[in-house]
Amino acid sequence: MLFDKSEYLERLNKTKKTMQKKGLDVLITTDPSNMYYITGYDAWSFYVPQALIVALDLEEPIWFGRKQDANGAKITTYLKEENIMGYSEELIQAPPSHPFDELANILKVKNLDTKTIGVEMDSYYYTAESHHRLVTQCSNANFKDAYLLINWIRLVKSEKEIEYMKNASTLVEIGMKRAYDTIKPGIRQNEVAGNIQQSLIAGNENMGGEYSGLTLILASGIAASASHLTPSDKKFEQNEGTIIELSGVKNRYHCPLSRTVYIGKPSDRINDTMKITNESVENAIKNIQPGKTCHDVALAFWDVLNKYGLEKDSRCGYSIGIGYPPDWGEHTLSIRKNDMTILQPNVTFHLMAGMWMDTWGIEMSESIRVTDKGCELFCNLSRDLYLI
Amino acid sequence: MLFDKSEYLERLNKTKKTMQKKGLDVLITTDPSNMYYITGYDAWSFYVPQALIVALDLEEPIWFGRKQDANGAKITTYLKEENIMGYSEELIQAPPSHPFDELANILKVKNLDTKTIGVEMDSYYYTAESHHRLVTQCSNANFKDAYLLINWIRLVKSEKEIEYMKNASTLVEIGMKRAYDTIKPGIRQNEVAGNIQQSLIAGNENMGGEYSGLTLILASGIAASASHLTPSDKKFEQNEGTIIELSGVKNRYHCPLSRTVYIGKPSDRINDTMKITNESVENAIKNIQPGKTCHDVALAFWDVLNKYGLEKDSRCGYSIGIGYPPDWGEHTLSIRKNDMTILQPNVTFHLMAGMWMDTWGIEMSESIRVTDKGCELFCNLSRDLYLI
Repeated sequence: MLFDKSEYLERLNKTKKTMQKKGLDVLITTDPSNMYYITGYDAWSFYVPQALIVALDLEEPIWFGRKQDANGAKITTYLKEENIMGYSEELIQAPPSHPFDELANILKVKNLDTKTIGVEMDSYYYTAESHHRLVTQCSNANFKDAYLLINWIRLVKSEKEIEYMKNASTLVEIGMKRAYDTIKPGIRQNEVAGNIQQSLIAGNENMGGEYSGLTLILASGIAASASHLTPSDKKFEQNEGTIIELSGVKNRYHCPLSRTVYIGKPSDRINDTMKITNESVENAIKNIQPGKTCHDVALAFWDVLNKYGLEKDSRCGYSIGIGYPPDWGEHTLSIRKNDMTILQPNVTFHLMAGMWMDTWGIEMSESIRVTDKGCELFCNLSRDLYLI
Repeated sequence: MLFDKSEYLERLNKTKKTMQKKGLDVLITTDPSNMYYITGYDAWSFYVPQALIVALDLEEPIWFGRKQDANGAKITTYLKEENIMGYSEELIQAPPSHPFDELANILKVKNLDTKTIGVEMDSYYYTAESHHRLVTQCSNANFKDAYLLINWIRLVKSEKEIEYMKNASTLVEIGMKRAYDTIKPGIRQNEVAGNIQQSLIAGNENMGGEYSGLTLILASGIAASASHLTPSDKKFEQNEGTIIELSGVKNRYHCPLSRTVYIGKPSDRINDTMKITNESVENAIKNIQPGKTCHDVALAFWDVLNKYGLEKDSRCGYSIGIGYPPDWGEHTLSIRKNDMTILQPNVTFHLMAGMWMDTWGIEMSESIRVTDKGCELFCNLSRDLYLI
């Protein structure tokens, strides 16, 4: 187990307390990050339906997943064997049958099908069909939206969680430096990407890393005008900028980082945009402290952009921690105007300045921990354009 | 563009014809693989709501996604700019707003909100909330389940698709050999995993690869009794088996492969299980030809297992091709009893014999193309236990 059992129980208790406040007897989560947070369950099995049932009347949650993954739940969670319930293989990708028919049945057997049941309406892997099965088969239940209920509990990190994020920051720095060391004109993007992945996952002499919730973003020239393109056979060229966004991952905890590399001599426009972006980021960082809101930090960021007349529509940050594909964001706070979430010590977020222009782009970001009096950065790497 | 425009149009026409047969005027797909298949759109942007609208009355599909990803659609698809519709950033992760409010609005503006609309009820990223938004806001539409409509069109591959899968097979062989070359007692799993990823993505002197729909599965000892555990800091040990499942990926086309490595001298039980598994796989392969069903192939596989009294609950194969996280399977045919799908030339699938026992496991698989008269394997690698 990667955390003391007491930490898992504290998470479960917080969840149950919030459920009580919201009038929920039962909570069904399909978000792999939430399943991991509550039980430690860690496997790439979320490509088939699975869920965790938390009920006020049940001491432990129930893991519900494919039978062949039940051993994975036994190995990675603290749950008693009776609370690990594998469903039959014949339900796998065999419409009109569906695994949630069996989940509905478990709710009935456990007398939970007449209760108020929270479901994460907009969570990854909670499909329209999954919901349809539960609602039609547990027609006496009262279903309520509990989207983000657990995610908000994840907002403030424990010391152990911070430790894993610091491990991840070590990995992401190694990964970014590997990018700097291997990008050269004439080299294929995916050759560099392979090297980066090796660094992120093989790590250093003490530890390695894991697959990331969001893949390595690496795009050059006009492709850097888009925010989520991935490396290909394209070769690096003279006089082209490359945006790189990646994350170190330790025990599913992420530390993302973005930088921009330029081969040759950047134009004044690119240099100026980088400088303004960095000044915005620095001003935002200065304004991060407990008691301030995301809105305050966003104002500090956009004050600088506005001063120079630079536009950016998209938010400039979001909460981070546990992540599984397709994301490493926690979907709670965003650093943008009118997000009135109040910062607290051990809130962690990715302050992300992506400047995607018409035919080019730059990226600069920092992963940040709010401290007692201000904040600290997880990484320590120059924010200037990296010139090759 | 990775395919001639004519190939994209053929895919679109097939989709429209199937829509007509099923009485659908409109089809909304959120599956990144289906979006890629129809338009070429390729970006890791599926962590936010996005969709493709195909309508009988519209010549081209409409790409609907986050505004900052619209440049990615312009770069990777053949769509006219007017058919690339980016939604406002303020809808991102900001409940109670939701991007599908804007999608509903587009349906209204295009006069599609009174039509019969197919939605993929059980597809990845089509959440219960997404469906709820459409149904409540387009209350005059007739919604029908169109889950797997496009997936079934993807079943038979074109020559160009086969070419990309062959490229992927080159990559996966390099990756597996890298595993063989680097696994040693005392080495961390993630050090080996980093090396494998480098091989899969950096590729050879001619080409590199891409991120995979399903991550590298690598688990040793008791963890090999579970089907989807991933590499960690654990060190390889003497007298332990390791299951490895990975995929080469070229232009989003996958070629998966599984093998088992053993350090030391395997027990008779492991050796026997490996032999029986391989005999099952060989017998299945002998029975693959156009006109036969998945059921026939499954019978051939289980005939051998039954002869030796070896049990396996889970299916032993599934259709492959395009993939995005969380999966590389196409969710159409499965190699299992009672799947009466008839094999045709250029149907491609992953014949996967995962034998997950109580405290150990072995895996053996082949990616296979059905040919005019029988079948061919994408890879050429011994199926014996790899001994170290």
